[in-house]
Amino acid sequence: MLEKRLTLLRTHFKELNFNKLSRVFPQIEANIDKLGEIQGHRYQDKKLAAISLVHRSSLVYWPTDKSGIFSNERLEFLGDAFLSFFVASEAMIEHRSLQEGDLSRLRAALVGTENLALKSRDLGIGECLLVGKAEMNSNPQRRDNVLADAFEAVTAALLLDAGEEKARAWLLKIFSEDLLAGKDTLLKFDAKSKLQQWTQGIIGVPPVYKAIGTEGTPQETFFIVAAFIGETEIGRASAASKREASKKVADKIIEKIESGELTKEMIVSFFGKEK
Amino acid sequence: MLEKRLTLLRTHFKELNFNKLSRVFPQIEANIDKLGEIQGHRYQDKKLAAISLVHRSSLVYWPTDKSGIFSNERLEFLGDAFLSFFVASEAMIEHRSLQEGDLSRLRAALVGTENLALKSRDLGIGECLLVGKAEMNSNPQRRDNVLADAFEAVTAALLLDAGEEKARAWLLKIFSEDLLAGKDTLLKFDAKSKLQQWTQGIIGVPPVYKAIGTEGTPQETFFIVAAFIGETEIGRASAASKREASKKVADKIIEKIESGELTKEMIVSFFGKEK
Repeated sequence: MLEKRLTLLRTHFKELNFNKLSRVFPQIEANIDKLGEIQGHRYQDKKLAAISLVHRSSLVYWPTDKSGIFSNERLEFLGDAFLSFFVASEAMIEHRSLQEGDLSRLRAALVGTENLALKSRDLGIGECLLVGKAEMNSNPQRRDNVLADAFEAVTAALLLDAGEEKARAWLLKIFSEDLLAGKDTLLKFDAKSKLQQWTQGIIGVPPVYKAIGTEGTPQETFFIVAAFIGETEIGRASAASKREASKKVADKIIEKIESGELTKEMIVSFFGKEK
Repeated sequence: MLEKRLTLLRTHFKELNFNKLSRVFPQIEANIDKLGEIQGHRYQDKKLAAISLVHRSSLVYWPTDKSGIFSNERLEFLGDAFLSFFVASEAMIEHRSLQEGDLSRLRAALVGTENLALKSRDLGIGECLLVGKAEMNSNPQRRDNVLADAFEAVTAALLLDAGEEKARAWLLKIFSEDLLAGKDTLLKFDAKSKLQQWTQGIIGVPPVYKAIGTEGTPQETFFIVAAFIGETEIGRASAASKREASKKVADKIIEKIESGELTKEMIVSFFGKEK
């Protein structure tokens, strides 16, 4: 049944004018091969692979008639849904004692922008992508979005071209560690809430996260974020996005708390009073 | 592959102590048969069907040892993900020209609490459900949640017991009209945003929705919601929940605008000034 529906869906993407696309982006052939290597699959329908690699920003300055040319957003929509179902079912298989709330949180962590962008980077999907230069250089949050969306789009391309079985097998390879980690993953992604609860129990307010600078090169900028209680810095970390950095800070601080390096008494003294 | 994973998942629900459950809720056997009729499927594993019908509120006053007794929340989690993937793929098959944003909105409308509660009511799933009395009598929003969650849970039970093909076929029957309606469904569900945009373009603010009373019986209460511009009521409607009622109000007002019964000039005069 699913395979029959996928066959129907596949026909929708035949409208791509591949020759036209590859005249403007001659690198697309090589990029499709690269994607095939990453996914361990030789695409029967090159159009599907091609579409999954076209970010809309690459078409902003499309030089001629745009008919038959489109971007990966519809594939991204499909891939997102398939991925969520995949992660939901696998998380349940792996963790028979996790309740719905924890399963939801685990799924959110695994299919969240941050984690999918990470997978895209690790696999080298970014290098296959056709994307406007401005998009990849400017804002790290936007870059993460592009990479996460691309992960979903290439997942859908594989689903449509190779079938459900191969797509699931590919995802299983990529997410098996995250799935096994399970609760640890949950805790890691949730360090900020954990820290917030802790300081609120002591002084009634959460720590304040501030971006205090950047490091790295103009091509590869990292944001430094520090967490403060009152005027006192209780930890700092750097990452490609402020959000990621603030999670890393929370991680570090949680470790300090667990090791006894940071105590309730210190938090009270930094803040000046108890709750 | 999917079927193999589903087989693995199925084993997780063997832990239910069916005899214990049916001693406290002897009606469960009849309810499972009813569910089977609704879904056109005879359950091989009665436990799966049983679990999908146990709302947690029915276990609040569980009289004895609770081991081996649990509710439908994990099935609901799985059903939700499967349903989302189903609707995403079918919406794309049906509407090849809809872009990602519209596809997302269509999916949200179809799998939203309101629509799933409606399906549950139409199919009679509510009558099979084991649920605390207070849960179904008190708050219509909570009742809708229970019914929508139950729809997801019985979808997952069917998926696990009958397989992906039968589950998809069942869903296709239920949602085919909504899927065909497509854009109309979108517009209907989106009347509130449409109306908001319209009044904001004229006077800079959205209409204000107020619950102005109830009607019906204590067993079946309907909320009356009216929309105001300034002091002037521009429409009212009643429904089982405030949210549903305010959508119906917006629907009615959109109709009034389209028929010319409500004009920009009127909105300006009700509000006292233009944007």
